[in-house]
Amino acid sequence: MAASGNQAYLAMEESVRSRVPPILTDLYQFTMAYAYWRAGRHNEHAVFELFFRDNPFRGGFSLFAGLTDCLLFLRNFRFSEEDIEYLRTVLPPSTDPAFFSFLTSLDCSAVSISSIPEGTTVFARVPLLEVSGPLAVVQLLETSLLCLVNYASLVCSNAARFRLAAGSKLKLMEMGLRRAQGPDGGLSASRYSHIGGFDATSNVMAGLLFGVPVSGTMAHSYVTSFSSLKEVSPQVMVPSGGGESVDFVTLTIGWLRRVCPLLGVESERIHEGELAAFLSFGLAYPLNFLPVIDTYSVKSGLPCFCAVALALCELGYQPVGVRLDSGDLCRLSVEVRSVFLECSKHFRVEEFQSLTIVGSNGVSEQSLGDLKKSEIDVMGVGTHLVTCTHQPSLGCVYKLVEASGHPKMKFTEEPEKTTLPGSKNVYRLLDTEGHPCLDLLCLSEEPPPVVGVSLQCHLLGHGNTPHRVTPTQVVKLRQNVFSKGQLTLPLSSVAESRARAQTSIHSLHPRYKCLQQPDTYIVAMSEELFVLFCDVKAKNTSANNFLL
Amino acid sequence: MAASGNQAYLAMEESVRSRVPPILTDLYQFTMAYAYWRAGRHNEHAVFELFFRDNPFRGGFSLFAGLTDCLLFLRNFRFSEEDIEYLRTVLPPSTDPAFFSFLTSLDCSAVSISSIPEGTTVFARVPLLEVSGPLAVVQLLETSLLCLVNYASLVCSNAARFRLAAGSKLKLMEMGLRRAQGPDGGLSASRYSHIGGFDATSNVMAGLLFGVPVSGTMAHSYVTSFSSLKEVSPQVMVPSGGGESVDFVTLTIGWLRRVCPLLGVESERIHEGELAAFLSFGLAYPLNFLPVIDTYSVKSGLPCFCAVALALCELGYQPVGVRLDSGDLCRLSVEVRSVFLECSKHFRVEEFQSLTIVGSNGVSEQSLGDLKKSEIDVMGVGTHLVTCTHQPSLGCVYKLVEASGHPKMKFTEEPEKTTLPGSKNVYRLLDTEGHPCLDLLCLSEEPPPVVGVSLQCHLLGHGNTPHRVTPTQVVKLRQNVFSKGQLTLPLSSVAESRARAQTSIHSLHPRYKCLQQPDTYIVAMSEELFVLFCDVKAKNTSANNFLL
Repeated sequence: MAASGNQAYLAMEESVRSRVPPILTDLYQFTMAYAYWRAGRHNEHAVFELFFRDNPFRGGFSLFAGLTDCLLFLRNFRFSEEDIEYLRTVLPPSTDPAFFSFLTSLDCSAVSISSIPEGTTVFARVPLLEVSGPLAVVQLLETSLLCLVNYASLVCSNAARFRLAAGSKLKLMEMGLRRAQGPDGGLSASRYSHIGGFDATSNVMAGLLFGVPVSGTMAHSYVTSFSSLKEVSPQVMVPSGGGESVDFVTLTIGWLRRVCPLLGVESERIHEGELAAFLSFGLAYPLNFLPVIDTYSVKSGLPCFCAVALALCELGYQPVGVRLDSGDLCRLSVEVRSVFLECSKHFRVEEFQSLTIVGSNGVSEQSLGDLKKSEIDVMGVGTHLVTCTHQPSLGCVYKLVEASGHPKMKFTEEPEKTTLPGSKNVYRLLDTEGHPCLDLLCLSEEPPPVVGVSLQCHLLGHGNTPHRVTPTQVVKLRQNVFSKGQLTLPLSSVAESRARAQTSIHSLHPRYKCLQQPDTYIVAMSEELFVLFCDVKAKNTSANNFLL
Repeated sequence: MAASGNQAYLAMEESVRSRVPPILTDLYQFTMAYAYWRAGRHNEHAVFELFFRDNPFRGGFSLFAGLTDCLLFLRNFRFSEEDIEYLRTVLPPSTDPAFFSFLTSLDCSAVSISSIPEGTTVFARVPLLEVSGPLAVVQLLETSLLCLVNYASLVCSNAARFRLAAGSKLKLMEMGLRRAQGPDGGLSASRYSHIGGFDATSNVMAGLLFGVPVSGTMAHSYVTSFSSLKEVSPQVMVPSGGGESVDFVTLTIGWLRRVCPLLGVESERIHEGELAAFLSFGLAYPLNFLPVIDTYSVKSGLPCFCAVALALCELGYQPVGVRLDSGDLCRLSVEVRSVFLECSKHFRVEEFQSLTIVGSNGVSEQSLGDLKKSEIDVMGVGTHLVTCTHQPSLGCVYKLVEASGHPKMKFTEEPEKTTLPGSKNVYRLLDTEGHPCLDLLCLSEEPPPVVGVSLQCHLLGHGNTPHRVTPTQVVKLRQNVFSKGQLTLPLSSVAESRARAQTSIHSLHPRYKCLQQPDTYIVAMSEELFVLFCDVKAKNTSANNFLL
């Protein structure tokens, strides 16, 4: 995609995505903002982190996505008069009216974001985004940022798993719009599935907005709408090389009379309406002929396809293939392929050797793996991809780690919900072969790890066990992407994020990207962060004398 | 809600919902539309039905929702120049340019919709919507209508199950925005959960657009942001009845010194930051004081709450209650309640007898049932509600049943995917107690069933077994809601759909609405429809002589 194309897409996308208004959030953000404002704390410098606690789908990794949406949201963050009027009716009557003037004045001009690039492989407990700025503002951003990252990263990671399950040869097409959580759910699914590794989408608007290749031919309703050959119009076609029009219906019927005996199909099995539908479609799309062949039965659909396709070939056109949408796709695709090869040989049509077989029928990650033995070339995936059946939410959280320079953490009644205090940097250590091997969380004031210099760290989720490592290659994972209300890096287009995702997954060691029982990737705290963590924890559990 | 309020909401809603453009659909709709247009069939009268094949969540019923969104979409259905320009780049270069002029001219002025009212209990295989009009147009509507009905009905049905599991006493609050499929997924979840039986939402925009009551207090980050009592500002408060300002911090510390021994909590366990957070919140919200009390441990949060709340009571204010967000909510709520009653008795404060306990912590339908034994008054539900974990998609389909007056059906390689031909009416038969007992699908030209007159029908999903029934009460389920591009009935507001849903569920016999192993509700074909079904099926499997 050309750079100018990217710009056009991003401009259109912004016009759609900027529709996420700051009022699309939880009420408690405003409740807290008022209490901060009233205590005069609203402009205190605060730092929040956004992360998830477990990789989704019991997997070994995730893909980070949603950053572009977040940045567009931040850039447009302003309350409308209508928003403010509504908030007046929702907050208690005792709320100081000056608070609403304060809200009216808010924007993200004092907010900074440090983020992992969209499309990077990421792991549980690593802060993906760090959001810093005035306490009241960065608190108000919580729900919207979570909403924009959670599903984007989830479906992107799911798509990456489907891609890994399918192998690199099978083309994958996303077609889940009708099963998603409404229009935007569908649009997000199309965008982030493509970043995760899908080749195309059925969703036209995703093509328009994001430049995702779109694809699609016909539904069963198209076939059932035809009853008779009389409905085929026009009935004639000009050959590809030009010349006199040929009666395409008669030509196809001639081919059908030769195909049926070859396939061992009694001509009574053929549906006239199905043949009429295919004829009409072939006439409309002589170079894009790919009908669905199981509306009544493949026993009727397949000979009809072969006849129309052979007639197209005779006129110098190249038919594309067929779609199967029911039954045992593995078995049916093998049968269909063998018929294609039989026809190619028997009628000496080379075009039949390269026909495409498209499949679709409630495919899951598991069943995709089985299709490797099939003759399917392109698989359409809907429900299980977009709804992420195995784990329909990622569970990203947004936690305060610093306020007015003081490190912050929470404990709650569940130890696994304890957070790590302090503003941080995140470094990824690569092994000698360039595979990521450890993500290190350091305090932001610490110097970065040095190649060749051994360091001690503490493994998260392993009782903080001490661990020694000598970095051979160090990558700083996060970049400053937003500062003073402005983007500090160009927005990543869908194509760029997709390329990053594919490179990032490629560089991941197979032991982390295998779909079943992967190894746990190591995420660790630096010694300094560990000391701070212990220190803050101790302060929170030790004697507290203010009451004495 | 006042009628004028409804109008205001609907106007705002329309401005948001009309953003669903007709290009948000699958490409194959255009591919088919072109083939219809080229064959001169685009204006043929066609009838499609929208239905689902199985009740979700292994349940006995579903709620139909999404109709308002569909009607707003239809009313605004027009392609923009930008849409058309994009379609030119996506359809094959051989596409006749006149087709794009045709698309430019399209709207829904020739489309009619017959629909079950939003919020009605519905069952598998019953056509919820019948869409009729020019073949090319009604085909183009498929994906968008499915997208708007599928998730709406699913999450509405899920909410109804949560409501049934919770019993009528527990208040339910939806708080899933951050875990939904992006902004619109979250907004749809809030809207349709309320229709399904939730009392409130955390989603402010859902309050603004749909009039859903909004609710919310504070997150853990609010609590962790405070370190010291010095951060409390102002430190004084005017009593509810007026008069001199009182030092609220000193007053509260006095109460805390009395509360700790009563609760058996050592004063060293108290977090100064937590007390500061609660003090600030109480000062900001003397009549809406409801903090989250488990940021560090309930052992600290509960005495802090009691002290601030007792100070508020002393000044004539009424504290509201507490929120628990981790741990064993059942056990903790019982402990908290007993502390409230103990305080009430010991300090003679009546206000402590009616405090509210709010819970939230990954609650599912199953765990809601267990909370009946708890002391929780209000439960916040997020992830499991909005993602519909147990079945994240409904699987509505949109099938052609008639074209140019001819009944249509499909078979495929899977018998359960066979459709029922012909344009239909749907009647619901009620038993003598007013409970729905059978939904009858009739051909649209048939007279309605008559009370007291026995009729023969055929049960769907039971091998079409013949069945005799004598109606005691008959309701025509569908109404004409859209004709000639216009609404023929007023749009149902969220409040109206919610009232209908609650009435409709109430009238359902317990054997269909129990959450585990419900009875299967009977859906049947009329004798005439059955004859047509057999006739079309036979034609499709009998000898076909057009090739001879």
